Amino acid sequence: MLKVTVWNENRHEQKDPLVQEIYPEGIHGAIAGFLKEEPFEVKTATLDEPEHGLTDDVLLGTDVLVWWGHLAHHEVSDAIVEKVKQRVLDGMGLIILHSGHFSKIFKVLMGTSCDLKWREAGEKERIWIVDPSHPIVEGLGEYIELEKEEMYGEHFDIPAPDQLLMVSWFEGGEVFRSGCTYQRGKGKTFYFRPGHETYPTYHHKDIQRVIRNAVKWAKPTELPKPIYGNAKPLEEIKASK
Amino acid sequence: MLKVTVWNENRHEQKDPLVQEIYPEGIHGAIAGFLKEEPFEVKTATLDEPEHGLTDDVLLGTDVLVWWGHLAHHEVSDAIVEKVKQRVLDGMGLIILHSGHFSKIFKVLMGTSCDLKWREAGEKERIWIVDPSHPIVEGLGEYIELEKEEMYGEHFDIPAPDQLLMVSWFEGGEVFRSGCTYQRGKGKTFYFRPGHETYPTYHHKDIQRVIRNAVKWAKPTELPKPIYGNAKPLEEIKASK
Amino acid sequence: MLKVTVWNENRHEQKDPLVQEIYPEGIHGAIAGFLKEEPFEVKTATLDEPEHGLTDDVLLGTDVLVWWGHLAHHEVSDAIVEKVKQRVLDGMGLIILHSGHFSKIFKVLMGTSCDLKWREAGEKERIWIVDPSHPIVEGLGEYIELEKEEMYGEHFDIPAPDQLLMVSWFEGGEVFRSGCTYQRGKGKTFYFRPGHETYPTYHHKDIQRVIRNAVKWAKPTELPKPIYGNAKPLEEIKASK
Amino acid sequence: MLKVTVWNENRHEQKDPLVQEIYPEGIHGAIAGFLKEEPFEVKTATLDEPEHGLTDDVLLGTDVLVWWGHLAHHEVSDAIVEKVKQRVLDGMGLIILHSGHFSKIFKVLMGTSCDLKWREAGEKERIWIVDPSHPIVEGLGEYIELEKEEMYGEHFDIPAPDQLLMVSWFEGGEVFRSGCTYQRGKGKTFYFRPGHETYPTYHHKDIQRVIRNAVKWAKPTELPKPIYGNAKPLEEIKASK
Repeated sequence: MLKVTVWNENRHEQKDPLVQEIYPEGIHGAIAGFLKEEPFEVKTATLDEPEHGLTDDVLLGTDVLVWWGHLAHHEVSDAIVEKVKQRVLDGMGLIILHSGHFSKIFKVLMGTSCDLKWREAGEKERIWIVDPSHPIVEGLGEYIELEKEEMYGEHFDIPAPDQLLMVSWFEGGEVFRSGCTYQRGKGKTFYFRPGHETYPTYHHKDIQRVIRNAVKWAKPTELPKPIYGNAKPLEEIKASK
Repeated sequence: MLKVTVWNENRHEQKDPLVQEIYPEGIHGAIAGFLKEEPFEVKTATLDEPEHGLTDDVLLGTDVLVWWGHLAHHEVSDAIVEKVKQRVLDGMGLIILHSGHFSKIFKVLMGTSCDLKWREAGEKERIWIVDPSHPIVEGLGEYIELEKEEMYGEHFDIPAPDQLLMVSWFEGGEVFRSGCTYQRGKGKTFYFRPGHETYPTYHHKDIQRVIRNAVKWAKPTELPKPIYGNAKPLEEIKASK
Repeated sequence: MLKVTVWNENRHEQKDPLVQEIYPEGIHGAIAGFLKEEPFEVKTATLDEPEHGLTDDVLLGTDVLVWWGHLAHHEVSDAIVEKVKQRVLDGMGLIILHSGHFSKIFKVLMGTSCDLKWREAGEKERIWIVDPSHPIVEGLGEYIELEKEEMYGEHFDIPAPDQLLMVSWFEGGEVFRSGCTYQRGKGKTFYFRPGHETYPTYHHKDIQRVIRNAVKWAKPTELPKPIYGNAKPLEEIKASK
Repeated sequence: MLKVTVWNENRHEQKDPLVQEIYPEGIHGAIAGFLKEEPFEVKTATLDEPEHGLTDDVLLGTDVLVWWGHLAHHEVSDAIVEKVKQRVLDGMGLIILHSGHFSKIFKVLMGTSCDLKWREAGEKERIWIVDPSHPIVEGLGEYIELEKEEMYGEHFDIPAPDQLLMVSWFEGGEVFRSGCTYQRGKGKTFYFRPGHETYPTYHHKDIQRVIRNAVKWAKPTELPKPIYGNAKPLEEIKASK
């Protein structure tokens, strides 16, 4: 059974009544909730737990890690970020949500600033599917419409995605590459744009579907870690012919 | 249950005793055999059947089509090729094997000549994995070694693959992009190099594994066909706001 | 000096007074006009000329071909399309504009339907740059704004571009991958969305800049055509060691 | 005139007579030498200079930076690496050579371990061109043959290149993705494999050609830095309609 850990900064939930109302069990609780509809073993972890809830045991026992953060990216320990990165290179899937674009882990995996434009105006977003062949979009229609969301606009300073699955349209005149896959080592990473804390985005059926699909897609590929370093001598290779 | 059709030209098998000896049930029979180890519903079809065995019913009932051809690409009817292409755009997976690089269906989907270098000298091939994150390489080691294979060498005149999974090394000094994925419409296509008819390549456990993995990866994504053509008038859009 | 041929269907110009007013020298004339600001040798060719103006001499003497067509894609001879395709594979650059998405040459190079959504409502378009590193976007700002254009919307049924440079936003709620590069053989192809015949799009300075940049980018790479077919025998290779 | 800085660790040159013999003016001197055949303004910088020769003035005055390092990656200051990275995101081209795959700057831009297999056995390498359309391969033949080079073998732990231009074959049985382009921010990066210090690789005409071509390709694209952060309010946008 696929083992999923949902990590959440869990800070807005501590102090913003609106967020509490929308996500009474926290954003992590909401996400864990709909992931449990699949045959996944789902746990949660949050910033203020020891080691941010991401101990070696937890990381080694995680097939796919889902990440939501916003206010406190700088409080995430560099040592933990390094461990998460190593786990991704070793095969763990990673789903980065919304403002996680500015998380340390996403930035170190991308190598760019991951900066973007934003506007909090409760405007309409339409997430158009541009690759209808990909398993992450299974079960969707042509687009997902969100009545109110924060705007994220281009230029989004990321490497060209390996696969671009979705592009958002915003009422105010911006577009955004909203669904992007990246291979890093043996691991698969997916960035998915929507999910501002003051809107009920993670209660939307299609948003939930995308995240469930993404977790399945990101599951580790089983094969031995490649062998790096000094290779067998040429003499030995020639002798064996 | 995933419905797989294995298509084979089945001409070498009619006249070459060596091929008959290696593949007594035909190349299609051999491939269908190891695909049946999975929970797939597997059928075969060959060139000399009416409509090459690819009637509308067969095509509509196929989730993933596996294709092997060599001597008689030109005998495949353009009308059937057009139907297969349409099915791919509508979501059917397509696995093109070895000399299928020169099949009409692969060439129309690629838009290039699909030409390459070749040499029949029973030389050693090593198929190195360059993307260890991809589900198609699951269960393999660092490379697949084939003691004797036909050489295919670069330049291979294909579009840059969406994902390059494997690169072959040949004894005589050539390399080749051996495992390539392509999205076309709602369908997923995979080209896999090895499989010359005079070598027992399709009896090799790792080659079988790649093809089984590829069939699973290529399964259709379920979502409605996108709507094309004239869109809703702008007045109507504005009025509905 | 780079030799550029601007091909235009030139049919709207024959019968639509509005188009005649906007483009008194035809769309080809307008495009050739601003291309001449560069050190290019610029010619034009149109559908109704013998061989559509694309004789062997013209094609062999063309480094980069710019293509605009709309009403009469089906009147373009298959033989000429085949010749243009061959020239692209041999290194000629190809710039496909706007409704050229449905031209035979674009469809055969892509391998997909190249279908899309459209709406003629004179709505606002914003073409956002998503890859600010690419030479084709040199000299632009963050986006190009066109007050009135035809809408083209996703899903655009093309292969995933090698490089996605621009994404359009439309007033009515759609997005579109508007600037896409593709390698085909030795040739480079660029699709650029804007340019409906009833709007003065090709008089816009930034649109002109993109097309000039694209022509420079698409210039042929000088190297010998790869050698295809039967390669040197392995014995000979081994003997030479 | 394009301003190029060739950076070299310059340590092998201090202590290895063989390297001194092959590169009497250092690897940086050899590379600067053949770059001067182009209309470039070429400077060099080395590890042991103050700030590694990469002061703010030097970096701001550099259009394209060429990088060779091997023994002392860990001695390169993190602060300088951060400045180089920022310059790349702002548009400076970066050419990473050979053992530079393990430099801090390449690793932070890639987000992966950049690890690989290697063997020093003076074996034959053939660098095959797989994308004959790209300006970096202009003027080459089908492949570059190096009689003696260090082997680098897959798996090479890099993100899938934006464009894969070359693949190496090695006598001992390995392959390697030897020519890889990456967009990062406004900057273009190219990794080029060959160049072990004990072989006269940078005296090879085709290797020189690739590096000259790469410098031209990597030149900065002129356009304003994208605007990031809080965007114009929606009310203002609506009011302006």
